[in-house]
Amino acid sequence: CGRTDQQPPERRVDFPVSVVLPAGGTGERTGLQTPKQFCLFMGRPLISYTIQAVERVLWIQNIVVVVAKEHMDLMTDIIQQFRHRKVRAVPGGSTRHRSICNGVLALGEQEEEKERLLSADRPKVVIIHDAVRPFVEEDFLYKIAMAAKEQGAAGAIRPLVSTVIATTSEGYLDHSLERAKYRASEMPQGFTYDVIYQAYQRCTESDFEVGTECLHLALQYCGTNAKLIEGPPTLWKVTYKRDLAAAESIIKETLSRSACVITGGSEQAVPLADAIQKAAGALDMALDVIPNLMGDNCRYLLKEYNFIQVSVNRSCLSEVKSILKDLEAANQALLHPLVIILVHLSCPDELSISRAMPELAAFMDVASAANLRNILLYGIQVHQSKDTERWERSVLRVAEITSALIRERSPALVGQLLQA
Amino acid sequence: CGRTDQQPPERRVDFPVSVVLPAGGTGERTGLQTPKQFCLFMGRPLISYTIQAVERVLWIQNIVVVVAKEHMDLMTDIIQQFRHRKVRAVPGGSTRHRSICNGVLALGEQEEEKERLLSADRPKVVIIHDAVRPFVEEDFLYKIAMAAKEQGAAGAIRPLVSTVIATTSEGYLDHSLERAKYRASEMPQGFTYDVIYQAYQRCTESDFEVGTECLHLALQYCGTNAKLIEGPPTLWKVTYKRDLAAAESIIKETLSRSACVITGGSEQAVPLADAIQKAAGALDMALDVIPNLMGDNCRYLLKEYNFIQVSVNRSCLSEVKSILKDLEAANQALLHPLVIILVHLSCPDELSISRAMPELAAFMDVASAANLRNILLYGIQVHQSKDTERWERSVLRVAEITSALIRERSPALVGQLLQA
Ligand SMILES: [Mg+2]
Ligand SMILES: [Mg+2]
Repeated sequence: CGRTDQQPPERRVDFPVSVVLPAGGTGERTGLQTPKQFCLFMGRPLISYTIQAVERVLWIQNIVVVVAKEHMDLMTDIIQQFRHRKVRAVPGGSTRHRSICNGVLALGEQEEEKERLLSADRPKVVIIHDAVRPFVEEDFLYKIAMAAKEQGAAGAIRPLVSTVIATTSEGYLDHSLERAKYRASEMPQGFTYDVIYQAYQRCTESDFEVGTECLHLALQYCGTNAKLIEGPPTLWKVTYKRDLAAAESIIKETLSRSACVITGGSEQAVPLADAIQKAAGALDMALDVIPNLMGDNCRYLLKEYNFIQVSVNRSCLSEVKSILKDLEAANQALLHPLVIILVHLSCPDELSISRAMPELAAFMDVASAANLRNILLYGIQVHQSKDTERWERSVLRVAEITSALIRERSPALVGQLLQA
Repeated sequence: CGRTDQQPPERRVDFPVSVVLPAGGTGERTGLQTPKQFCLFMGRPLISYTIQAVERVLWIQNIVVVVAKEHMDLMTDIIQQFRHRKVRAVPGGSTRHRSICNGVLALGEQEEEKERLLSADRPKVVIIHDAVRPFVEEDFLYKIAMAAKEQGAAGAIRPLVSTVIATTSEGYLDHSLERAKYRASEMPQGFTYDVIYQAYQRCTESDFEVGTECLHLALQYCGTNAKLIEGPPTLWKVTYKRDLAAAESIIKETLSRSACVITGGSEQAVPLADAIQKAAGALDMALDVIPNLMGDNCRYLLKEYNFIQVSVNRSCLSEVKSILKDLEAANQALLHPLVIILVHLSCPDELSISRAMPELAAFMDVASAANLRNILLYGIQVHQSKDTERWERSVLRVAEITSALIRERSPALVGQLLQA
């Protein structure tokens, strides 16, 4: 099975592109102790999501993350823990421009070293992107890279959400700007290596101290008029505390769109699996029903974050353990918590799993162990019924509980056996 | 028991103040079918949260909500369903300024009618606030009202998050603005009735068609320089789909800061209640332990959103039913879903509630019925243990599960009996 996880379609970029991610912010605007880029989302720092968004782009060669000196060790640990590739960390300067400049210079050095070995070129284009904008897509990076190659500089813009006003020194309204003529300057921005390198060579100490806008330096010191490209709203910068909640919600939603239902080849499980599939569809979750994860179906191990094991009238802890083993082998839980839900269909006369306490304790133990490896295991028990209305209500509840568990990904509820 | 729910301290405002809430937006930027102001947050539309934020301010006399004609019926239903006071809906115009103008004129009419009856004045100050900024606080409304009374006009500002740039007609960078000199103009804004009334009388058709900034009209047509006041980040406008998640998260967090633990006067329940209190404190949730909701403690019915009933070695469905009855009498679930968690401590040798299926079915039935009345009922079972380490782990799990249930407020999980 090849890795197909979220690889967007490849685009032709026949020149070398590198990325600088300034990540030196102190996060004062979130009102939190931890700088935003290091805030955890389901156990992983925001910066790792941004790196992931950039490193999965095949035509990007190198990524330099610029962090404050005191965060170098932390950053190195993050790169190692989440097995990021083509990334290295360099220490930042005292201002945003000094940090970006350090990143650009580091790209040059890196490439010089390589040159001796591989006679590779310096990057033709450097993309600068914020560490706290994790939802950038390949498509937009491509547009910025191409425009930068052609024009020398390019930057993302967004419409202004609020009217911008000029204030008097006494705190009164001076005038308001005509909204249509102005835009918010966002990230990513792209430059040919020569333009961004020269801009930083030529700019003044004062530019380094108080400036923030790279496009402005390119214009002032290289005469390069940047091409402005309107980006999607997902380019937004995680700035305030509320943005952390918004980011978490987007990440969780992305992980919750689909699931894979495994019947274990049991003929009795198939009708239940199909019914759950239908009910989940009405809740905007797309389910694929498969007998097992073998053969061609092992691709689900590499692209799916949620698994539902259906079992009828028997314990299936062994099946669950087998999925756990497969998922660990595929190393899928490294970047996101995975969810496994065991749906157990019991006959009314059967000694149910909930009453068989040793079985329940074993399930809880397996779940606790899996939780340590970033896999969230839950159980749902549904009772067979010949009353159609009652049965349909039960199936709907299975779907609702499944959807809630997958969307919320709550570690506090692992090992629970819920009743549908 | 008097109603003490979230009433901020009263401030002295010795002139009449009214509020206009323009709510005519079409919500195109969220990418959703429903306009943002009507999107549901735990069953209640956003506009109702904004109305609540304004109507609880004692010194605000009247609120006029301006909605598109096609939403008049919906808005009237919302006002009725959530029992909003001092609010009426009026139909909007074809642009933002026409809508706000309609709201201002409606205030005048209303007051004229009153004048005949009560010889009351027109509002001295009119505050204009967006329907999609639900987190405005009394303190800031007060600042705006006082500055408007004094200066004629006042408006909220925020620092710019992004650099603002001017673009050429060909889509290139023209120049970037010096960030320090500019601010984002936000809401609320306040005006004396005379200034906003005259501004709309004097302004042109073109102002009505393309303008958006009321402060600009006050300056241009009444020569009134608005006082600008920096507001908190919570003033932000729910604009994009991600903002819906951020708003929901803020609302849920506000509801999840505290809970009330009821021991039912049982001596055995008190140590467990105290242990849960301590563990929850470490999870940033403040618990008050009380024997019941009678006498002085009935105040919790009016200020608390979360209740934890602790019971030892016996069914306590009757206690839960009694809390349900009290909460319904206090009508607290009208604006927010309330949570009740039954924590059942059982001896190892006891026939536990989870194995006594009829009891569990009865619990599920009570929970389903409560859910229809916006009260979320969950159960947690914890087993007595003489092994200290094991017991402490169990108590910690009770606190973790409690915290997760209260924070997530998931209707899909009501009636479940979870194992700690
Ligand atoms: Mg910039
Ligand atoms: Mg305005």
